[in-house]
Amino acid sequence: MSGTLYGIGIGPGDPELLTLKAVRLIAACPVLAWPAPLQGDGLARTIAAPHIPAGKTEIAIRLSFRPERDDTDDAYDCGAATIAGHLEQGRDVAVLCEGDPLFFGSFIYLMTRLSGRFPIQVVPGIASPMAAAAVALHPLSTLEDAVALIPATRPEAEIERLLQAAESAVIMKIGRHLPKVRRVLDRLGLTHKALVVERATQDAQRLIPLADAAEAPYFSLILVHA
Amino acid sequence: MSGTLYGIGIGPGDPELLTLKAVRLIAACPVLAWPAPLQGDGLARTIAAPHIPAGKTEIAIRLSFRPERDDTDDAYDCGAATIAGHLEQGRDVAVLCEGDPLFFGSFIYLMTRLSGRFPIQVVPGIASPMAAAAVALHPLSTLEDAVALIPATRPEAEIERLLQAAESAVIMKIGRHLPKVRRVLDRLGLTHKALVVERATQDAQRLIPLADAAEAPYFSLILVHA
Repeated sequence: MSGTLYGIGIGPGDPELLTLKAVRLIAACPVLAWPAPLQGDGLARTIAAPHIPAGKTEIAIRLSFRPERDDTDDAYDCGAATIAGHLEQGRDVAVLCEGDPLFFGSFIYLMTRLSGRFPIQVVPGIASPMAAAAVALHPLSTLEDAVALIPATRPEAEIERLLQAAESAVIMKIGRHLPKVRRVLDRLGLTHKALVVERATQDAQRLIPLADAAEAPYFSLILVHA
Repeated sequence: MSGTLYGIGIGPGDPELLTLKAVRLIAACPVLAWPAPLQGDGLARTIAAPHIPAGKTEIAIRLSFRPERDDTDDAYDCGAATIAGHLEQGRDVAVLCEGDPLFFGSFIYLMTRLSGRFPIQVVPGIASPMAAAAVALHPLSTLEDAVALIPATRPEAEIERLLQAAESAVIMKIGRHLPKVRRVLDRLGLTHKALVVERATQDAQRLIPLADAAEAPYFSLILVHA
């Protein structure tokens, strides 16, 4: 009997925004894996820390975290192989995933590598658009609104087309793309309605009207409703 | 000192998908309010039931639940007035919200009516697109994918334009709009990739390839990745 691979959404940062199911499975699984930078624990391990009992086997999946990283990283091959070793021995493995595992989550790359060989279950988590909307008291959508979730890494014309197609938008992964995004929102007359939310629900959380934002970190997003 | 109004996301249906923060605040608030049909408890109250201690004051906000309901319903005025009475007396009020409070949530209509008069906090919840993706093991987005969240109530041409602008889409509130959505997906050659998810994480959950779906309830959605 092989173990089960769990992708566990741990939410945006506040350790109280884990679900009961996430907390139960983290406690129950003997092996935990988490994406991390080349050194240190990384955000996922830090968010989940209050809920991790002593005595777990832990696997750090060391990623270079290029903003537009691809899925060919050797770290995923290596992490998947280590995880597979535990699953083959019948040990359940919980992968800690910031936000939601299947929404821009690195869990997808592990799932792809291990799919078909082992049972897989995903526990959804609070995704960053909902976390940012909550701290900003910003309605994402009512009635017939369409919502576009847009990586700021996209070309300028494509961001514009998506913003024109939907009533509500969340532009993610801002970082060095702030000037480009600002140009598009300026052209559409939306800058005065746009809010930058940095690190929603984390200690370093900040909310800044786009008009006043000089820069924005990679882990920030812009909320705008036309 | 007035009380605080809490909008509490309680997730898609599985009572284990409440966050720790939601459970804590439901236990702490003396007054609970929840949207409900004209008779009975409704889904939000049912999902949260295992986490509701005895002795709460409860306010049912009775809605007619027309699929494209507007925000002029007298029930919101009446519910907001009752809630305001408790807040003025210094009692905190937790509004139970299926999914996430600010993503197609009726909490938005209460927040609009009470904003500026009382402190308001929102606890984000697991939204239905993430819940459906989890049970289907369906990656919503990687790298530079844009995701469109589209009410099926929209006109056919607008659904088509949104689907063409984004790599990934979740089409919500299907119900009687199934034939229209199927026509659009057929035209775009996406029907064979589309999955209908009904009542994700609830006991009555069903997953059906769109090609095999004869009908779909209002609380179903379609996942499709181009």
